Amino acid sequence: MASLKINRRLIMTPGPVAVDPRVSQAMSNSILGQFDPDFTDIMNETMELIRASFKTINKWSFPVDGTSRAGIEAVIASIVEPGDKVLVPIIGRFGYLVTELAERAGGIVHTIEAPMGEVIPQEDIIQKLDEIEPKVLAIIHGETSSGRLQPIDKIGHAAKERGIYTVVDAVATYLGQDIPVDEWALDAVIGGAQKCLSVPSGITPITFNERFSEAINKRKRVEKGIRTSDDKATSHFITSNYLDLTQLQDYWGERRLNHHTEATVNIYGLYEGLKLAIDEGVEARARRHSYHHEAMKKAVTALGLEIFGDENHEMQMVVCVKIPEGINDAEFRTELLSRFGIEIAGTFGSVAGQIWRIGTMGYVAEKQNLLNFITAFGVFLQSKGTENIDPAAGLEAMTNYYDEHEL
Amino acid sequence: MASLKINRRLIMTPGPVAVDPRVSQAMSNSILGQFDPDFTDIMNETMELIRASFKTINKWSFPVDGTSRAGIEAVIASIVEPGDKVLVPIIGRFGYLVTELAERAGGIVHTIEAPMGEVIPQEDIIQKLDEIEPKVLAIIHGETSSGRLQPIDKIGHAAKERGIYTVVDAVATYLGQDIPVDEWALDAVIGGAQKCLSVPSGITPITFNERFSEAINKRKRVEKGIRTSDDKATSHFITSNYLDLTQLQDYWGERRLNHHTEATVNIYGLYEGLKLAIDEGVEARARRHSYHHEAMKKAVTALGLEIFGDENHEMQMVVCVKIPEGINDAEFRTELLSRFGIEIAGTFGSVAGQIWRIGTMGYVAEKQNLLNFITAFGVFLQSKGTENIDPAAGLEAMTNYYDEHEL
Repeated sequence: MASLKINRRLIMTPGPVAVDPRVSQAMSNSILGQFDPDFTDIMNETMELIRASFKTINKWSFPVDGTSRAGIEAVIASIVEPGDKVLVPIIGRFGYLVTELAERAGGIVHTIEAPMGEVIPQEDIIQKLDEIEPKVLAIIHGETSSGRLQPIDKIGHAAKERGIYTVVDAVATYLGQDIPVDEWALDAVIGGAQKCLSVPSGITPITFNERFSEAINKRKRVEKGIRTSDDKATSHFITSNYLDLTQLQDYWGERRLNHHTEATVNIYGLYEGLKLAIDEGVEARARRHSYHHEAMKKAVTALGLEIFGDENHEMQMVVCVKIPEGINDAEFRTELLSRFGIEIAGTFGSVAGQIWRIGTMGYVAEKQNLLNFITAFGVFLQSKGTENIDPAAGLEAMTNYYDEHEL
Repeated sequence: MASLKINRRLIMTPGPVAVDPRVSQAMSNSILGQFDPDFTDIMNETMELIRASFKTINKWSFPVDGTSRAGIEAVIASIVEPGDKVLVPIIGRFGYLVTELAERAGGIVHTIEAPMGEVIPQEDIIQKLDEIEPKVLAIIHGETSSGRLQPIDKIGHAAKERGIYTVVDAVATYLGQDIPVDEWALDAVIGGAQKCLSVPSGITPITFNERFSEAINKRKRVEKGIRTSDDKATSHFITSNYLDLTQLQDYWGERRLNHHTEATVNIYGLYEGLKLAIDEGVEARARRHSYHHEAMKKAVTALGLEIFGDENHEMQMVVCVKIPEGINDAEFRTELLSRFGIEIAGTFGSVAGQIWRIGTMGYVAEKQNLLNFITAFGVFLQSKGTENIDPAAGLEAMTNYYDEHEL
């Protein structure tokens, strides 16, 4: 078989997106043993960086060795015991994923739903908390399937007052918007690598507080083979060993108890990606995302496309547009990719085939990319015979925005 | 924080070991979208390479996005249902890990044990199969904690005749010894990345046959949010979503049903590492491992150390030696690492603190590494005042072996 030959791409989807070359360079470093002090130092520094990224003092801030859903499952499977009530607000596909994870953990799932394109008022969620009295509130911050940003600044506090644990899937918004975990009183939050952080998929930063830690440690069971006489083994243990957060605490904490073999190179990448993000600054990075999001919105609107969804609650890294009449979603995207190397996304669920999602995440979110995208996309759309498409107007709107607004 | 600065290491442990620079280069390629045809082509070619590596025609040969234990858990958690009997032969720490995974899946675990350093005759295991009548036989091929190679060429056939599923953890032997999966009638086998394959930890190749696939698909449940009316949802579903092999089949198979976001860069690395291994040849690679294993054995024996364990059943990529009297295990290894950048391993369980494990895996297994290791290790050991240590004899034995034997 031939050596790997990767063609050039401009990935304008909500992930996975391009990686900063500095991250790739970091990942080409040689291997260190997993208990080599040089490596455990890097692990500790990575924890520091994760804390900074979430603006938290949580001791337990470390990555899970798997893709984003491994991180979400680790949190849900560790806190939800069979019979526990879980409230899941749903505004799109990833809400359903959380219900699935909670059900697989044995949880009794209750939901509160809004149609795709809308969000759920926090007051409604709080009212539902009082009605259901769940153990866990599990919610998506940025619902990428509809491009909506669910407000969550108040519900963590409300849940805490009621003794409920708040779990937030912030995979898509992580380091693209500000998520002050402690200020918002969120108990456990999952970030994402391959979106606004622009690190390759395969490792997932999470954070959780002492309250959450105490709850999951009631289920702690150190595995056979390394269990000592001091280690209690409960009968209501966490079903997964790989995604058992209490075992990961022993591995990432002072005890350094052998668990999995840490994914050395993914850690290098995460470390470097986080360092770049923290150097840029969490707020500055959020501003950069909003800036390019606005430029893209202005441009696609001027181009002749209609924006989808509640504009008061938009994720600042995905623009959702209605697919013009006469255009076949899959065919258009396939041709855009094969001819131009440009990728945009369709979606899932009730609006599948009706909207496109144009992502401007992390390393992708800069002027050159957006200007190249809007011209190729606009003209190609026009060339398909779509009515009322004006590529020059799209470009002009973007250029004007950039000229008139400083980042 | 400073940029990543990784010091030079000579990792002579049973993993994680050094990565071939060609693998690192492959991993520095830019990202492709997960449903980009260029990427799904690479996924398909990776499946072909995994088939070749296991000498199998199994359609279901793909990687799990996680470290080795994620692969083992995926297999165990998918096949073992609550109440299922599982027989686990134990000859060291990783046998216990499998009992742990089986228990967490709700299995009723039966064991047959041998002391560390020994293996279990296949006849004894087959007799135990008749006695217990388990659903699953789960066994470790290379038990790295004691350096033993458990014979498994007959038990797969015996299990199959009895309607029992054989699961083999071949993480440490994968592509360092020949594991003809179909010839040995093994139903599901898990390989490892960071050992003889010399790809970074974080991705795990597995293979399983149709018989195994039929069994796990009785538990199939397509997740909410992408479930169609054609998809049945059983009540005795697999507890994990991330490690649910039936969902991974839909993702890696023709349906390409969205699941996790594939770990792009880890796939690049796995693809390149497998390509290098298959180009070398599975048997040639096994010969190379045996060759350097023998060189290391001859050398450490001539140096004055005693070999640990049953020499008729040695893994061909780990030499186990008894730690000389008067030497503190942890202190010696720490100093060897900090002064020379050379890492060897201690072990777990009943012989912890009593033996060292010297690995010669994958990219590490070549003459220069071994010659540099044996001299530094020998003289440093002698400098600690250990009696009857003869570094020159150790070097001579290795040199003679290399001069007298061709690979």
